[in-house]
Amino acid sequence: MQRILSTQLARHTGRPVTIAGWIHRRRLLKSVAFLIVRDAHGLSQVVVTEPATRAQLESLAEESVVEVTATVTGNEQAPGGVELTGPAIRVLSAVDVQLPFDMHRPALSASLPTQLDHAALALRHPARRAALQVAAAATAGFRTALTEQRFVEIHTPKIVGSSTETGAGVFTVDYFGRPAYLAQSPQFYKQLMVGVLERVFEVGPVFRAEPSDTARHLAQYTSLDAEMGFVADHRDVMAALNRTLGVMTSTITERTRVATPKVPAEIPAVSFTEALRIVGARDDGDLAPEHERALGEWAVREHDSEFLFVTGYPMRKRPFYTHPDPRDEAYSNGFDLLFRGLEIVTGGQRLHRYDDYVAALTAAGEPLEPYAGYLAGFRYGMPPHGGWAIGLERFVARLLGIANVRGATAFPRDLHRCTP
Amino acid sequence: MQRILSTQLARHTGRPVTIAGWIHRRRLLKSVAFLIVRDAHGLSQVVVTEPATRAQLESLAEESVVEVTATVTGNEQAPGGVELTGPAIRVLSAVDVQLPFDMHRPALSASLPTQLDHAALALRHPARRAALQVAAAATAGFRTALTEQRFVEIHTPKIVGSSTETGAGVFTVDYFGRPAYLAQSPQFYKQLMVGVLERVFEVGPVFRAEPSDTARHLAQYTSLDAEMGFVADHRDVMAALNRTLGVMTSTITERTRVATPKVPAEIPAVSFTEALRIVGARDDGDLAPEHERALGEWAVREHDSEFLFVTGYPMRKRPFYTHPDPRDEAYSNGFDLLFRGLEIVTGGQRLHRYDDYVAALTAAGEPLEPYAGYLAGFRYGMPPHGGWAIGLERFVARLLGIANVRGATAFPRDLHRCTP
Repeated sequence: MQRILSTQLARHTGRPVTIAGWIHRRRLLKSVAFLIVRDAHGLSQVVVTEPATRAQLESLAEESVVEVTATVTGNEQAPGGVELTGPAIRVLSAVDVQLPFDMHRPALSASLPTQLDHAALALRHPARRAALQVAAAATAGFRTALTEQRFVEIHTPKIVGSSTETGAGVFTVDYFGRPAYLAQSPQFYKQLMVGVLERVFEVGPVFRAEPSDTARHLAQYTSLDAEMGFVADHRDVMAALNRTLGVMTSTITERTRVATPKVPAEIPAVSFTEALRIVGARDDGDLAPEHERALGEWAVREHDSEFLFVTGYPMRKRPFYTHPDPRDEAYSNGFDLLFRGLEIVTGGQRLHRYDDYVAALTAAGEPLEPYAGYLAGFRYGMPPHGGWAIGLERFVARLLGIANVRGATAFPRDLHRCTP
Repeated sequence: MQRILSTQLARHTGRPVTIAGWIHRRRLLKSVAFLIVRDAHGLSQVVVTEPATRAQLESLAEESVVEVTATVTGNEQAPGGVELTGPAIRVLSAVDVQLPFDMHRPALSASLPTQLDHAALALRHPARRAALQVAAAATAGFRTALTEQRFVEIHTPKIVGSSTETGAGVFTVDYFGRPAYLAQSPQFYKQLMVGVLERVFEVGPVFRAEPSDTARHLAQYTSLDAEMGFVADHRDVMAALNRTLGVMTSTITERTRVATPKVPAEIPAVSFTEALRIVGARDDGDLAPEHERALGEWAVREHDSEFLFVTGYPMRKRPFYTHPDPRDEAYSNGFDLLFRGLEIVTGGQRLHRYDDYVAALTAAGEPLEPYAGYLAGFRYGMPPHGGWAIGLERFVARLLGIANVRGATAFPRDLHRCTP
């Protein structure tokens, strides 16, 4: 008999079906036993009264994989209004070890490190699983929105020949006996690809050898990158991002039923100097986490928005490829997007003329040679362009109220952790 | 004036428009000059007669980025039936170097190594660009097909703590002062995620320290991975792949107008032993490239199919997690898919019981400890499952008749090349 999913049970009421999944919970009462089977979509309640089947159930540990053939029977008290009666149980994989923590409670009681040590099990919990489903939906929405806006997906090298982008925090690879580096972002490549396809995006891993152990940083995370040519300035980039976020949140709600905040048709924006004034901070060239939090509260209060753009960061703290604000070259056409007071996107307009790159690198005391492949793109003609990068795990964690970004990814990598 | 694309010109006939792009070619005739502007979607022909504009055009090198405001005028001889007349040209980025090769010919005359050295330029050629657009469409079709079949996208670690999967061909990373490795595939992780989401897919980079310099191998390539639980055996996996390939090819044709071969409703399949008989080879445990080519020709001749499954490879040449054929345990429930006589997919049913893994690793003389995080998934209950991995660049190269897989990726990595 063809297996059906837990979510399809109700439409088979009165008929025999076969379900399959993991033993989520057993409740062995005196006169009856309940078997809760978990599949990827939900739970099914199986009622066991027949002695031989009960004996079989008693011998099966939680997380064993079973196939159950039974009759769908209406029961208003059961989850979803139906349960399965008169079951025959076939064991697909029997578990014979004690679980390190209970799986059937609404939230896992194990600490985050314990969950991460036992990822193969912990991720099966519906709450942990939900974060991964939200991440998948966010990513799908990102691609849909960009494809609609004529962006083309690219795949760029994750092993690069020189550690040029920021210098610090780079992992070194033994590349056939010589040193190479893991890419900290697809920044240079996505810019080059603007010269080829005008508008590009990439969803892929980026690598940061973060020496600090915080709740916001991972050594590998998923970056949702986009870059677009023929822009007037950073505001065209912000508009494309704004539209993209709207599709991401609607896709999440559509696919996972998780409520998402309204993305305003035009996300409010404040300049860096205005932002300093709002939070009463002095100019250190960037915003501290507590200032970002205060700005998040301000945006809700003043604009009824959980999203806030901060534009015009000082040039001195932005990367060399940042385009200055033509009205005041101490400030940039770069922006951050705060979501509930946390920076989840960095973006901006980039330099597009070869001479400007030579000047910017020279001013930074950098040799040109390691940048040769990148600079070639500008030497051979590049339009005004800009883009952004969204940190997927940060976005999902903020959306779901997960305190530590490690809880929003399946197998996190950090200073102390490289397994499982 | 809002910029329009080359492909939208005809619907603006008789009206002034603004286009923008790269100077693809200039033809400076005596009485008239032609400017061919390339954008991401096509070419536009601009007719220059006015002396000042002609002088401006003469001063501009190929690949300079320009914005042209002009009137759309019908001309049956022009590409697309229209050209632009009475232009005003605004320069967005001027190029002042000689190009290393001509961009305006139907095919690039430069050798592949020269193209790769100058990737920022060479990829702009419509033929090179088309391969990247096909890759993007193939990937989109892959995701569409799998999402329809209830697969969920995952993102797995690319830095792993032990070099367990094959041993050979692994890149070592300096991970905060201790050795770690670049993942050769998401195999272990996608299997673990079957325990969480039942059906999963990942599109991401994989890394192979290939010491051989062939036209078929890359040190980094894009793997289209899928894994599904609750299968009867490998044939369920092959059916899901078959359906996925159909959506991939139709998406390619829909998005890029590139003709794709028919994917049969049921791709023909031969067993490994039948395959040996067909090509008259002896059993070395695998098929040599020339045998794969001969099988490709046989499939066209006998089944009118450019795709062919080969099933039941000997266990001795498949990885330890391969599920044996229950009818003869010397052979496996593993398969390859040949496309035009080249293996582009490897897949199969996997072991799903903990004890079978312990036995398989022990038989291979492997210690269990490095596999602990992986084995935990089976210890805690896993359904019968299987999956596959498609090599994206190989598939695109084969589809487009690109002889070297490096021509089907933007910035290839190999034994000798780690830039640009």
